[in-house]
Amino acid sequence: MTAEIISVGTELLLGNILNTNAQYLSRELAALGITVQRQSTIGDNHDRLADWVKDAKQRCDLLVFTGGLGPTADDLTKETVAACYGDSLVFDPEEWEKITRYFAASGRATAPNNRKQAMVPARGQKIPNRHGTAPGAWFEQEGRCAVLMPGVPREMKAMWEEEVRPRLLARQNSTLHSLTLRVLGGESDIEYRVRPLLENADPTAAIYCKTGECEIRITARAATDAEGQEKCRAYAKKFYNILGDAVYDEDVAGLEETVVRTLKEQGLTIAAAESCTGGLIAQRLTAVPGSSEVFGYGFVTYWAEAKTRLVGVDPAVIDRYNVVSAPVAAQMAAGTLEASGADIALSVTGIAGPTGGDEVRPVGTVYLGAARGDTVYLKKLHVSRPDRALVRARSAQAALELALRLAQGKIPAGTRALPRAACRDDQALAELDAAFLSE
Amino acid sequence: MTAEIISVGTELLLGNILNTNAQYLSRELAALGITVQRQSTIGDNHDRLADWVKDAKQRCDLLVFTGGLGPTADDLTKETVAACYGDSLVFDPEEWEKITRYFAASGRATAPNNRKQAMVPARGQKIPNRHGTAPGAWFEQEGRCAVLMPGVPREMKAMWEEEVRPRLLARQNSTLHSLTLRVLGGESDIEYRVRPLLENADPTAAIYCKTGECEIRITARAATDAEGQEKCRAYAKKFYNILGDAVYDEDVAGLEETVVRTLKEQGLTIAAAESCTGGLIAQRLTAVPGSSEVFGYGFVTYWAEAKTRLVGVDPAVIDRYNVVSAPVAAQMAAGTLEASGADIALSVTGIAGPTGGDEVRPVGTVYLGAARGDTVYLKKLHVSRPDRALVRARSAQAALELALRLAQGKIPAGTRALPRAACRDDQALAELDAAFLSE
Repeated sequence: MTAEIISVGTELLLGNILNTNAQYLSRELAALGITVQRQSTIGDNHDRLADWVKDAKQRCDLLVFTGGLGPTADDLTKETVAACYGDSLVFDPEEWEKITRYFAASGRATAPNNRKQAMVPARGQKIPNRHGTAPGAWFEQEGRCAVLMPGVPREMKAMWEEEVRPRLLARQNSTLHSLTLRVLGGESDIEYRVRPLLENADPTAAIYCKTGECEIRITARAATDAEGQEKCRAYAKKFYNILGDAVYDEDVAGLEETVVRTLKEQGLTIAAAESCTGGLIAQRLTAVPGSSEVFGYGFVTYWAEAKTRLVGVDPAVIDRYNVVSAPVAAQMAAGTLEASGADIALSVTGIAGPTGGDEVRPVGTVYLGAARGDTVYLKKLHVSRPDRALVRARSAQAALELALRLAQGKIPAGTRALPRAACRDDQALAELDAAFLSE
Repeated sequence: MTAEIISVGTELLLGNILNTNAQYLSRELAALGITVQRQSTIGDNHDRLADWVKDAKQRCDLLVFTGGLGPTADDLTKETVAACYGDSLVFDPEEWEKITRYFAASGRATAPNNRKQAMVPARGQKIPNRHGTAPGAWFEQEGRCAVLMPGVPREMKAMWEEEVRPRLLARQNSTLHSLTLRVLGGESDIEYRVRPLLENADPTAAIYCKTGECEIRITARAATDAEGQEKCRAYAKKFYNILGDAVYDEDVAGLEETVVRTLKEQGLTIAAAESCTGGLIAQRLTAVPGSSEVFGYGFVTYWAEAKTRLVGVDPAVIDRYNVVSAPVAAQMAAGTLEASGADIALSVTGIAGPTGGDEVRPVGTVYLGAARGDTVYLKKLHVSRPDRALVRARSAQAALELALRLAQGKIPAGTRALPRAACRDDQALAELDAAFLSE
């Protein structure tokens, strides 16, 4: 089955808004085994739209529209597509009643042009909208279909999930099951390792990468939910075999969610002292609902004196080793453990740029610390592209990765361990510093 | 002049990446007075692409392509478009030399198929790429043009700004000048007030909204830079007349940049104690290069005990008034001023949800404090959509707005003032609390 996606709206052609709908629908259609041949964005112009629909209808089985269902005179999509599919629109009192109620609930009166939104296909089907006023529409002629959904992403996604995807699955006599693996690591590396698994018809697997991690989405079609689940699980196993514990979780929004859940499960708490990340770690952890169970204290110790006053870093250590150094990261982590009473403490000190770098510590040099019990683990990071936002994002991601491993009771990979008591020991700090500088 | 934008790439049709190029180019073309009639995304398929180009070439003056310039056999865009414009490709030793050097610099050898990237238009022009290996191309036939740029957004934007936009301006015998106003306030409100100004041919003005603020971009074409600047300035004045000091700055990336710059100009420093925003304020401030001049201390006081231990909130005040209350926000701000020694201190305590709300304090209830000198200013915010991320984002934005006004030496609008000494006065706190609860 082939499809095209059509986004209608002058605001898109002006670049006033970013078209996220096309990406969302492309992923969803791919998961259904439907090949998207083209995405188009067109304005609210009747003739151009009609020409376009006539052509596109010949090219593929399904046209998926978003936008153009509003109440203004500009919004012509529904009428135009109806005509192209040999259908027409009729007034639907039930929809009109809903629209009137919706307006009344927000203290407004309907205008005459709102009646347009209550027009539904005469032969085709209306598609209920539970999250807005405009119903969608489904037209069909000689086995070719067109589906119209609202342009507001929240309404469109809800209508897709609740109404449109189920219809398409029913036509295929199948259900759809998805499983998302979250994987730590660099993009090109992961993609390279799993590439052969990404070219499969059923289950399909697609990879989406962001800073410091990737998402692998496995989707299976099957007659029953149980069978779909089993197919996904079996295919996921192939990824686990290649990637091992770089796969840190399934079906979560991000690493912070897994860290918070793991801490909860283990009955542990966490705190952080942040210099170059400036609150990014705290912000990511507290973005997770219920994080107050595990996170209570965050210190943004941007200045050297803040590192000393809030988490007890020795000013002499800063002078001796530089504020961006393993000894400082070690004292920050140890001091945060003490100042907060948390079970795990993270620390970050680095040079995010654009200025402040030198030969020994170029922009992108970051030291991370993570303390648990009697041990502090230290890690050095070097982000080669001197981009402030990237350096900060990678650093926060690396710190959360340390937190996850400590919460899991593992020794984090690529770290040096220092007894927590040695954080006040000159000799031990000098050795630690030298070891990192000679890396 | 009319244009269409064409993004080439199977990865876009699969939804693996979000198409930000189309939005960027749409804005840029609109600023040049070029009407974008359609945006399309197509795969790397020679026949479909050729059909498409033949049609599109009839419909409009300029076709703007991104993507499809890579070295693999799939990347057919350049050959296909050349043929449609009656042109062909020739090997360019100079480009080949550049590609070879580029590979050598990263320790790699070129493969035979890399030679494809050194093919340039025989009659048309090659467009230099200073940020990657693939040169762009410009084809022209009977006054109709096609321009091909890389798909990687960073390379595409650079090529557009350095090479393509100047060529288009030269054809128009004009220069382009832009001015961006940043405006505080709700989206629909601002858009409604300035709508008549948004429908102008030259200068053009477009509005882009995000959480708690909007960006208004004014663009003028003119024979000289000075004239363009003057036209923008005159048109900006119309917006200032309507919006007043809701326009907080020009040509900045966001409110945090203006706050940091204003603090620097005034020789002031700032600190923050954050509960529901969980580090978001600190993170935004420290995202600005050079923020270490004004920001040294951030406290993420997520737990009640952290509010007490780090910024001296009286536990009895929390018990009496609730942790989400004006008295607690007042003590947090006053305590942060003292703990950090900063000139301005911000505080936030609220219910971001999804749980934790009740009748008196539904999800979305947030108290903000801002202390400077002998006074603490308090404000209550209610975010009606109970969306955790939205509540946090709006709260951080409102706090930065308070910071800006205090840095400017103004009394922030919509606040109640409390003498800082009264933050320890039971009677004063009780009156403050009552005043907010009766709002």
